[in-house]
Amino acid sequence: MSAPNRNTLWARAVVEELVRAGVDTACVCPGSRSTPLTVALAEHDDVRVFSHLDERSAAFFALGRAKRTGKPTPVVSTSGTATANFHPAVMEANQARVPLLVLTADRPPELRDSGANQTVDQTKLYGDAVRYFRELPEPEADARKLRSLRTAVGRAIGETTGANPGPIHLNVPFKKPLEPVEVPGDVPDDFADDHSLAAEGRDGPFVSVHQNPAAPDDATLDALADAVESADRGLVVAGPDDAHGLTAEAAAALADATGFPVFADPLSGIRFGQHVTDSRVVGGYDGFLAADDAPLPEPDVVVRFGASPTSKPLRNYLRDGDARQFLVDPAGGWREATFTASDLVVADPTETARALADRVDRPAGDWADRVAELEADYWEGVDAFDRDALLEGDVVAAAADDAPDPATVMVSNSMPVRDLDRFARPRSAELTVLGNRGASGIDGITSTGLGAGSATDDPLVVLTGDLAYYHDGNGLLALDRCDVDATIVVVNNDGGGIFHMLPIEEFDPPFTSQFKTPHGLDFEPTGDVYGFEFARVETLDGFRDAYRESVESEGTQVVEVRTDSEASHRERERLATAVGRYLND
Amino acid sequence: MSAPNRNTLWARAVVEELVRAGVDTACVCPGSRSTPLTVALAEHDDVRVFSHLDERSAAFFALGRAKRTGKPTPVVSTSGTATANFHPAVMEANQARVPLLVLTADRPPELRDSGANQTVDQTKLYGDAVRYFRELPEPEADARKLRSLRTAVGRAIGETTGANPGPIHLNVPFKKPLEPVEVPGDVPDDFADDHSLAAEGRDGPFVSVHQNPAAPDDATLDALADAVESADRGLVVAGPDDAHGLTAEAAAALADATGFPVFADPLSGIRFGQHVTDSRVVGGYDGFLAADDAPLPEPDVVVRFGASPTSKPLRNYLRDGDARQFLVDPAGGWREATFTASDLVVADPTETARALADRVDRPAGDWADRVAELEADYWEGVDAFDRDALLEGDVVAAAADDAPDPATVMVSNSMPVRDLDRFARPRSAELTVLGNRGASGIDGITSTGLGAGSATDDPLVVLTGDLAYYHDGNGLLALDRCDVDATIVVVNNDGGGIFHMLPIEEFDPPFTSQFKTPHGLDFEPTGDVYGFEFARVETLDGFRDAYRESVESEGTQVVEVRTDSEASHRERERLATAVGRYLND
Repeated sequence: MSAPNRNTLWARAVVEELVRAGVDTACVCPGSRSTPLTVALAEHDDVRVFSHLDERSAAFFALGRAKRTGKPTPVVSTSGTATANFHPAVMEANQARVPLLVLTADRPPELRDSGANQTVDQTKLYGDAVRYFRELPEPEADARKLRSLRTAVGRAIGETTGANPGPIHLNVPFKKPLEPVEVPGDVPDDFADDHSLAAEGRDGPFVSVHQNPAAPDDATLDALADAVESADRGLVVAGPDDAHGLTAEAAAALADATGFPVFADPLSGIRFGQHVTDSRVVGGYDGFLAADDAPLPEPDVVVRFGASPTSKPLRNYLRDGDARQFLVDPAGGWREATFTASDLVVADPTETARALADRVDRPAGDWADRVAELEADYWEGVDAFDRDALLEGDVVAAAADDAPDPATVMVSNSMPVRDLDRFARPRSAELTVLGNRGASGIDGITSTGLGAGSATDDPLVVLTGDLAYYHDGNGLLALDRCDVDATIVVVNNDGGGIFHMLPIEEFDPPFTSQFKTPHGLDFEPTGDVYGFEFARVETLDGFRDAYRESVESEGTQVVEVRTDSEASHRERERLATAVGRYLND
Repeated sequence: MSAPNRNTLWARAVVEELVRAGVDTACVCPGSRSTPLTVALAEHDDVRVFSHLDERSAAFFALGRAKRTGKPTPVVSTSGTATANFHPAVMEANQARVPLLVLTADRPPELRDSGANQTVDQTKLYGDAVRYFRELPEPEADARKLRSLRTAVGRAIGETTGANPGPIHLNVPFKKPLEPVEVPGDVPDDFADDHSLAAEGRDGPFVSVHQNPAAPDDATLDALADAVESADRGLVVAGPDDAHGLTAEAAAALADATGFPVFADPLSGIRFGQHVTDSRVVGGYDGFLAADDAPLPEPDVVVRFGASPTSKPLRNYLRDGDARQFLVDPAGGWREATFTASDLVVADPTETARALADRVDRPAGDWADRVAELEADYWEGVDAFDRDALLEGDVVAAAADDAPDPATVMVSNSMPVRDLDRFARPRSAELTVLGNRGASGIDGITSTGLGAGSATDDPLVVLTGDLAYYHDGNGLLALDRCDVDATIVVVNNDGGGIFHMLPIEEFDPPFTSQFKTPHGLDFEPTGDVYGFEFARVETLDGFRDAYRESVESEGTQVVEVRTDSEASHRERERLATAVGRYLND
């Protein structure tokens, strides 16, 4: 396989190394400067190429796919502002430890700072938000350069798969010709024969990085075990999941051995799954801890996994106590913004949970019974509450309750994830629930969901709000272009309903014009643009019917649920008060 | 005016300084962390606040307005990925020297790197793409801190208005409470009395930066004048305009005094205007220089203004000669990627042109006649060409020819600006033609246009393509929210028609799937979403009718012109050949 020119040689080597490291999919945005990479990806039999027209959506799609699969997923663009459109997803990938591979084509060095068209400074474009930045050497049929190139790709992949995975950025300069046209002498005929290792690489990756989160050592496990054994009131808190996150099985084993309840964030991977029936998974904490006169005493030992919990009542509950709190994090992250954790265990969460479960045998006792009772009472209280208005939380809960088993569920920031946390009860169904909780933006929700959905045959549900749906409207183009089917639930309260939860609600103006920002958009016509079915409902029963029909159907359906955010918020407050009273009785 | 808390005090001081420095408009994206800034902007009588829901579009809208007015224009966001959505517009503002003021709210220092929600590293987020970055001090009722704050805003403004204006970034940390709630003791009752200068600032700006482009010195003018006087074949080249750009009057005076033709880029501010009838403005160069056997000898002296010309034939023509080339740039930018300029004059373009015109009195001569004749012949040749298919260039030319006088015309990158360059003849109408040619992205065209349109009563025309229209679809929300009317011309060739001009056209696959990328989008329903009128046309006459009707109407009309990009491209090539033959005859 002789290359017609140096750019072709170069791009093929990059793509070969990606594929040999396990990459099987790439998101590509059209552009001229990136032609060598695009052609090399498109011509490779083992790469599925998704073509995206908006780079922001492209990067979130790649992020979603990388999140769902755990595999490094490239996103490729031309030079210029295209590259800056990746920045939001890069930020999220950084915070959420997602293996996003950003490949940006660039003008060659001689054209930089020259006023040449579409030429900007792409060096370290994403600052510290990437694990690794490399400006790749200029293409040339040179053995050492090619080995350097292959090594750089391997090292980059290593940064996306180690103990602290995250995004990487390779900036790739090309000069013309960018197309695979024959350039006599550019790659000598005998180059591949003379330098076969450089030109063709190895059977597998040219270099591999072998790096995994550490196992916990004996001293650490002894300390953990002592604390757990001596606890009167112990808790496991499973926050939003990451790469190398706690598995449901390990969480269940830990709960069994310690007798500790597991407070499971909806994004922890623990709230839903077959283990739920057999373990002490608690999902009502956001509700029952929010009640006045909190009916639960403070824990004295807490073992925390994952990122900081979504639930503010839970964070405050943990903050206000004086418990010894172990934070188990494979990458050594101190993700705990109330500053109450006392011990950071830098080790693999699943191995830590399993090893601790092996060392401990502690009866559950009264405390666990109390928590279990509270959990049961909480959900009873929620059911018993007499609704006066459509509660957005009921819609989100219904979507989780009625989601197919298995399913991938992408949940938006702002209210949907908070409502899921508060209203979706643990369920023994294999729901893979994803959110962008690294940086908690609402800018790429649809695309992240579709990217995740593209990776499996599981039905896909996207739970989003009107602002997030509007923000990433361009992401809907992937339904057709990337052949993804979805049920997209849009809770449309015409603006930023979450601001009703904040004190700014009392200041109007500017509350309505600058915070709630009603837009009056009619989303139905977007179905005509992107070719999906659209249903609008205004009641919970109407939603349940439309939703069930959708998840059983082929194609994509957008189910818009029109709500009144103020009424829903008042109803949410009324429910909280009623449930609090119920729990205290 | 006593502030209820330190955040209110802080944000009011920031907004006061902005207003005293001339800011009268701000683009605000809803969010919680930015509440103090949003409230202070909304409550100020002298600021018009535009509320935007997509930060990417918001920043481009602010960019467009800043471009059109030359005034610093703020765009405000909450913390997190919202800030990264500004990055594409920041890049463009950097390259095109636009005074964009980016204000990002941030979590306070104690929450950074803690896993706190929506907390990312915003320090130097845009790298070297901003002229000035400051992390503002934490709010506190402290006189020295407040003076520092006011000074920082003044210094930032100074960076947006000097010889090399561009974007700046102020990162503003706030801790709760963010709303204007009374916090007893937070701002002592007597604070304003005790520290009135710090608390209230001055009548005007707290500090002002007095900084303008230098005037050319005598030695420089002598060198220029000598070169011009001794030239046989001299040219003025006016590239895309910038802040402190060459005025039409100065260009006309220079042309008169030197007898040099002025090759005027459509974005130069020189191709259109009342001066056109009286001066030697040439607009056909992109066409006649592209002809085989170029019928124009090389110049021996060139005086260049503005950024690198859009026209590739012009850039190549300048490259291939051996002329002495003076580049006049107020900011000392070497924006000349063919590396043929010999002299950089760091001075105000208009002053340089005027001073040079005063020193020189040179007859136009044969060379100027030859260029004028070529210009006339070129347009005759274009008119004489017998069309077989709808030529996209004719649509763009008709939009320029039939634009109201005055009008603001925003033109997209990729083909529209190239077609405008080649097919829009000089016209004595006050058309302010804008483009995003700094970084030449297609990502914020609509928003940039609407931002520019919001700044004047001139009718607004946006000339765009289907990919750019899709990319910035969210920008259309500003039509209603920011009360802008426009005529938006979408040349829809269903994908990246420009790739037909590149050698990749010969390689299919991947040409169609990865480069041309047809999307089949039906844009008509977006009218139902955003409330504009929509017309679809498929002929030039149909376009002219719909366009004329639109520019005479209230409200917004989107005129979609369906074209076949391959047929149009073949027609463009056939025209070029025919015109070349015409010119050589």
